[in-house]
Amino acid sequence: MANIQQIAKEAGVSVATVSRVLNHATSVTPETRSKVEIAIKELDYQPSMLGRNLRNSESRLMLVLLPSISNPFYTEIINGIQNTAIAHNYNILLCETDSKPERENIYFNMVKNKLADGIISMDPTVNMKWLNELAENHPVILCSEYEEGGSIPYVTINSELAAYQAVKHLIKLGNEKIALINSDEKFLYARLRRAGYERALKEFNLPIYDEWIYHTKELEFENGVQAMRILLQLEEKPSAVFAVSDTLAIGALKALNGGFEAPSDIAIVGFDNISFSSMTNPTLTTISQPMYKMGCLAADMLMSSMKGEKVESIVLDHELIIRESTMG
Amino acid sequence: MANIQQIAKEAGVSVATVSRVLNHATSVTPETRSKVEIAIKELDYQPSMLGRNLRNSESRLMLVLLPSISNPFYTEIINGIQNTAIAHNYNILLCETDSKPERENIYFNMVKNKLADGIISMDPTVNMKWLNELAENHPVILCSEYEEGGSIPYVTINSELAAYQAVKHLIKLGNEKIALINSDEKFLYARLRRAGYERALKEFNLPIYDEWIYHTKELEFENGVQAMRILLQLEEKPSAVFAVSDTLAIGALKALNGGFEAPSDIAIVGFDNISFSSMTNPTLTTISQPMYKMGCLAADMLMSSMKGEKVESIVLDHELIIRESTMG
Repeated sequence: MANIQQIAKEAGVSVATVSRVLNHATSVTPETRSKVEIAIKELDYQPSMLGRNLRNSESRLMLVLLPSISNPFYTEIINGIQNTAIAHNYNILLCETDSKPERENIYFNMVKNKLADGIISMDPTVNMKWLNELAENHPVILCSEYEEGGSIPYVTINSELAAYQAVKHLIKLGNEKIALINSDEKFLYARLRRAGYERALKEFNLPIYDEWIYHTKELEFENGVQAMRILLQLEEKPSAVFAVSDTLAIGALKALNGGFEAPSDIAIVGFDNISFSSMTNPTLTTISQPMYKMGCLAADMLMSSMKGEKVESIVLDHELIIRESTMG
Repeated sequence: MANIQQIAKEAGVSVATVSRVLNHATSVTPETRSKVEIAIKELDYQPSMLGRNLRNSESRLMLVLLPSISNPFYTEIINGIQNTAIAHNYNILLCETDSKPERENIYFNMVKNKLADGIISMDPTVNMKWLNELAENHPVILCSEYEEGGSIPYVTINSELAAYQAVKHLIKLGNEKIALINSDEKFLYARLRRAGYERALKEFNLPIYDEWIYHTKELEFENGVQAMRILLQLEEKPSAVFAVSDTLAIGALKALNGGFEAPSDIAIVGFDNISFSSMTNPTLTTISQPMYKMGCLAADMLMSSMKGEKVESIVLDHELIIRESTMG
């Protein structure tokens, strides 16, 4: 395929002149323009979009950082980001960091090098120091996970309140021994959900036992299965479980497997309302996050930030969805 | 931020000279090089990666076309593509076409305009005429769905044989009335899985009734729920169901809901072996596709094609995973 140098040679003009013709600059005579256009046709030259974007200094690409696409929680947010982005002539690049800092760095450099216009981070493992540095000069939005007291705008829900309501629902049903399947408390959402769990128990003067608080390494189904197996082996078994993600709760439900029934032996509440949560048997009581909407708003906020507008953080409403795993 | 024109002005040289310095061309005198480098430092100029990629005429970006990321079947393939791509210093751009041709066209143009180096298509709704045209001059690989007798290399499994084995498993368990929950037969995989279903029934002289073959519009859980509800209303109910995806099979399982039990009343086999298929109650018998491996190979094939190497199509092995929904 022809390049811009060959066009310039064929037309007998400079590369800069070809560039001016491609940019529809007015400083080109009709005669010169005609020569260049004939050369472009004859050599079947297709000007590179890369070059055009370079001149406009925008790539129309948004990066979306996430730890893994395996969790359906993220896929529903991504649908919202994607549809909003495409409607505004942007594309999104999904960046699975796999919690590896060197991968993050690749993506941060893409923004610094103008290969992408901004970043939406949903990655709780993201290096906040680096992200804050990037955000000083480039558009960055946090989605779902955020930094308390930080300066990067975010869209999220009130995790503490949602957890408090989930556990209060279990207490109102008569449960006094309530376990927590939490993820790693290095993540803000995990700390907030634990705080909500403890607030509800304290309010009703119920005990908080360390052995009823289990921490998983990841949010896969299998982590929930393992957590529930451990809880079922305790001498003092809980009568209810609050899990901080639906994937963990679905694994926990699975681990009951014949020996115990939900909700009669153990009631279970999850968090997220992923589509699987209404396909389990029993169906799962859960906190519904407005994932699609969260994605749409994150994309809107990033586009505002790209325009240099001031962007305010948003806390969206959640909802307790009561299903068979607590009221069978 | 400074641009290349400002550097040229500051250094008192032409833009072309700055470009030559950035490209480490040998035709620049040490003195000129030094002037440009000082200007770059003083103005804190960061050469755009876009410009660099333009010069190398490679973007190091692979496009991955898929109808929707909501189906976990695709997310596991994407993990394979992504890990392979990153290991070779490529990034992937996930392109949800939502079965809309105008979106496809955006992505095809990205390749034509050198914004991306090639395409892996997993989209059964892709416009094959356009894709074949693109493949004449650009690297294209088909993953999972492919074109019979077509010229674009693909990696897939033998869907006809897999479906035949799934249905034969149901027959061997004593089932004589076997229904098929299929998707739209405009898709090759749907036609092939139906052919395998019919081959097994014919081999054992079992009836093939039109009313036992249900076509869904999409592969969501809800489509499987609806399909099973219709089948359960038939006067002559099937005793077993083969669904062409796990999402449909899981919906079908859910539709039994109390009135019927799997496998005692109705045995169910799915297709894909998504991670959720071992979390249902009962767990789902299914055909396991090597999704992760399929993704790795698709990325390998695309990279070979980018190097101009001849790429052969690959048919991977599948496996019947027997679980509780057929042998409770």
